[in-house]
Amino acid sequence: MIALGENRYGKSRVRVMKVERDGERHTVHEWNVEVWLKGDFASCFEDGDNSRILPTDTMKNTVYYLARGSKAPDAEGFATELVTYLLENNPQVEEAGATIAATPWAHIHAGGTVHGTAFVQEGGGIATATVTYPRERKATVTSGFRGLAILKTAKSGFAGYIKDKLTTLKETNDRLLGTLASGEWEYAESVDYSAARARIMDALLNAFARHDSLSVQQTLYAMGKAALEAEPKIFEIRLSMPNKHCNLVDLTPLGADNPNHIFVPTDEPHGSIEACVRRAG
Amino acid sequence: MIALGENRYGKSRVRVMKVERDGERHTVHEWNVEVWLKGDFASCFEDGDNSRILPTDTMKNTVYYLARGSKAPDAEGFATELVTYLLENNPQVEEAGATIAATPWAHIHAGGTVHGTAFVQEGGGIATATVTYPRERKATVTSGFRGLAILKTAKSGFAGYIKDKLTTLKETNDRLLGTLASGEWEYAESVDYSAARARIMDALLNAFARHDSLSVQQTLYAMGKAALEAEPKIFEIRLSMPNKHCNLVDLTPLGADNPNHIFVPTDEPHGSIEACVRRAG
Amino acid sequence: MIALGENRYGKSRVRVMKVERDGERHTVHEWNVEVWLKGDFASCFEDGDNSRILPTDTMKNTVYYLARGSKAPDAEGFATELVTYLLENNPQVEEAGATIAATPWAHIHAGGTVHGTAFVQEGGGIATATVTYPRERKATVTSGFRGLAILKTAKSGFAGYIKDKLTTLKETNDRLLGTLASGEWEYAESVDYSAARARIMDALLNAFARHDSLSVQQTLYAMGKAALEAEPKIFEIRLSMPNKHCNLVDLTPLGADNPNHIFVPTDEPHGSIEACVRRAG
Amino acid sequence: MIALGENRYGKSRVRVMKVERDGERHTVHEWNVEVWLKGDFASCFEDGDNSRILPTDTMKNTVYYLARGSKAPDAEGFATELVTYLLENNPQVEEAGATIAATPWAHIHAGGTVHGTAFVQEGGGIATATVTYPRERKATVTSGFRGLAILKTAKSGFAGYIKDKLTTLKETNDRLLGTLASGEWEYAESVDYSAARARIMDALLNAFARHDSLSVQQTLYAMGKAALEAEPKIFEIRLSMPNKHCNLVDLTPLGADNPNHIFVPTDEPHGSIEACVRRAG
Repeated sequence: MIALGENRYGKSRVRVMKVERDGERHTVHEWNVEVWLKGDFASCFEDGDNSRILPTDTMKNTVYYLARGSKAPDAEGFATELVTYLLENNPQVEEAGATIAATPWAHIHAGGTVHGTAFVQEGGGIATATVTYPRERKATVTSGFRGLAILKTAKSGFAGYIKDKLTTLKETNDRLLGTLASGEWEYAESVDYSAARARIMDALLNAFARHDSLSVQQTLYAMGKAALEAEPKIFEIRLSMPNKHCNLVDLTPLGADNPNHIFVPTDEPHGSIEACVRRAG
Repeated sequence: MIALGENRYGKSRVRVMKVERDGERHTVHEWNVEVWLKGDFASCFEDGDNSRILPTDTMKNTVYYLARGSKAPDAEGFATELVTYLLENNPQVEEAGATIAATPWAHIHAGGTVHGTAFVQEGGGIATATVTYPRERKATVTSGFRGLAILKTAKSGFAGYIKDKLTTLKETNDRLLGTLASGEWEYAESVDYSAARARIMDALLNAFARHDSLSVQQTLYAMGKAALEAEPKIFEIRLSMPNKHCNLVDLTPLGADNPNHIFVPTDEPHGSIEACVRRAG
Repeated sequence: MIALGENRYGKSRVRVMKVERDGERHTVHEWNVEVWLKGDFASCFEDGDNSRILPTDTMKNTVYYLARGSKAPDAEGFATELVTYLLENNPQVEEAGATIAATPWAHIHAGGTVHGTAFVQEGGGIATATVTYPRERKATVTSGFRGLAILKTAKSGFAGYIKDKLTTLKETNDRLLGTLASGEWEYAESVDYSAARARIMDALLNAFARHDSLSVQQTLYAMGKAALEAEPKIFEIRLSMPNKHCNLVDLTPLGADNPNHIFVPTDEPHGSIEACVRRAG
Repeated sequence: MIALGENRYGKSRVRVMKVERDGERHTVHEWNVEVWLKGDFASCFEDGDNSRILPTDTMKNTVYYLARGSKAPDAEGFATELVTYLLENNPQVEEAGATIAATPWAHIHAGGTVHGTAFVQEGGGIATATVTYPRERKATVTSGFRGLAILKTAKSGFAGYIKDKLTTLKETNDRLLGTLASGEWEYAESVDYSAARARIMDALLNAFARHDSLSVQQTLYAMGKAALEAEPKIFEIRLSMPNKHCNLVDLTPLGADNPNHIFVPTDEPHGSIEACVRRAG
């Protein structure tokens, strides 16, 4: 006897550019939307009954249509509108969810002025927002980021770890610490998401920069703690900090010293450090 | 009060090429290994105590060292050796896990002969194997694949779905169905993993090719069912089949017809269909 | 005084899937087309005069329209039709060019049969074809490939090179030689392009496999020579063979030997070897 | 008769992170270096004679070694040191070249302060520098950038172009204009490369933002002209501006209007506009 287990379906990589025109100063939101539905779709999978299926093409249209009328100031708000609409209009659906990744655009600053209708893509990572809405329950709003490339050139060491017969790593009290960080946090209640995000990102970056790091683990924890202290409305934060090693080059065979000046940045292999930090008790 | 929640750490993208030399005929295994540990690492995260940390650099060395002595014929076997070694040699660890992605290499066939010591990288997706080993319990072996690009040019339609005011999709009983499939299945007990994988992949491809598809959902289910029928030692299979749409081009404005001959393949947006099919009852 | 220099414009990443339906057996061509025009466009760049500009959107439509009616059996033929059409219909254009990259699809072989209407994407690299057509002259047809991942586990060494004070590389008479090769060749006259391509690719692979390699350079040359010998209608071939190093792991510090069994494949840094081999005299 | 034609070899993706420590304020240069040599290497390709080959591994070591001692303030200066060293120490070489791509790192600004030893990766594109040095002649210094994502939401139209039977594009006097620009310029003589780069990038961005665009071609030309006017020491600039179309969504079938508010950003197909602008006469 074979049967359908957990399943979901939806549309991914629905891209939207929304331009808000306020006289000479425009604002752009570039969003990459993923939307999905869960429910009792057994007859569809098992028998090819499509009568309960909202086509993913219609989900895409729904994104465009709602974007046109939306007044949401941020991706969290728009994702909430989207999943609410899908739930209200599709009784066969038990849960709707959406994740939005926002490309960061800033006004161009050139020729001694800030240009109101021209933009340049910024660094500093991609902002993300996920809203899941199970019918008859509360929507959960999760914000986050990914692709945040950060680097410390001081106040980072690694020593006192386990040594066994396969150990070749040397202890150091002065290494580079670089990562391509990502993170996510959930809100206990509705907030001004942009303002909260700004506080959290500032706390994370400040903690990363200030921390006297004994390990990536310890720095991750210090960052998570700082974020929770900066924003009382979040109750947990999950951080992922791959250790993108910058290896000190041994120049001795080449007849030169290298007192922590020349490193080789590497993408692989990399350490992977992931943890959740949360309010307890 | 703030505390550490779930966490894990390890090494990713540890690449190994293992050459087996049997006279004039060599075999190569190219593996990309990810390995991780879970346990009580609170003092490490919270206090910078590294005395319980096996460095990720040592994990990398462990991969190389075990690869040298291993007689495992497949990635499932090597991943099992790796997590077992880590668990046995690290009493502070509660669970060890590893995922291996295997690059497919085939002997070069050229000049009318098969060359025993020269290889070309094949298509057909990447094979994956994951083993997780919680201390005092049984190791779980999961096999899978990703990046399998497949396409049907017949026996695929989509009709009878929900229409609402945002529907613009037209019904069709003859469309292209393409996907970049991935999947995973767990073994109830130890098997000849390579032979089982071959049976399962053959069943999946055969079902995909033969199926009179009313929807991607239905085809996914038919494939999962075929896999479970082909291999009695697996009890569930999870499949992900993004719908990489090939859109029929409307040539009418250009003065030509297009009876299902010319399509535009697209990467975005794409449908996302995911489900688990399992033995029940 | 400032003026316009060399320039060109066109459309890139125009994707087409063409399905040929011959009863129960279909054939698919998936092409990614880049098309461009050269000519006297100074007034357009300098003054914003668009009266000589064929929009790139129309170029895209032209690709779709010609694909519908085309009987060309290969990308070389279709690219020739495309540039000829653009030149004939646009007197303001002095040269038209097109490059097509063809995704390799093979019929699925599963369940003991070959399926006529189901396909799986193959390895072995991407075939390319470029045609450039300067008005009043002859079109040039260039064929090629890219992304061909090949590997030798025997008959490859590297020794006798220059040593200086910055040398740390050790000589070896037994190393792995892997590359992600690409190449291009021009035809002196029109041929059966698919048949010629098959002969050339077979000659390249056979030479790679058989060669007793003293360096990547020498192997590249042997491959180019073999291709020219296999196909009399080509007069030169350009090959690029980045040396994707597989480094032997030093297991001595870990207490194990490693007689050429365990290697670390790397993507960076990599050697870059490029050369043209041609008929002379 | 078959012979070797044009050829070159070298090392690519040699990554270096150089940390300059000036008390509490550090500076980092992250460079991805490609280096190559040309010369009479026929005996090497044709006969496997390695006696004239400087191994690419030694080229990599040379990058590290020179980086340690270098006082060059910019990538242009370091690339010049590198090719000069290679030419002076390798009489068999006729030309040496190097291209450096610099990852942009900025000091972290968080917690109300700028952190001297912590960095975040910025947007705004990657700076590039290429130096080629043919023996007995002068080194050529080329600077440039790539990956500069910019967008205009006003002052951009496209009309008055050629219409033919395959035209479906509608004329517009208000569209979005987005591109992922790259460019390169050569210096007539040695300059302060960082200062010149800053002036040129500012001129390019300012021209892009201010331009009343009738076409991408015209905007490209205006930008090139502005760069040449801003920096007298460059004599030509080559710009590539793929037109990353943001398509206006037709919301009429969905019962809504769309007065230039909601667009779909696309990656393919894209227009390709490339031109050189230079001083003439």
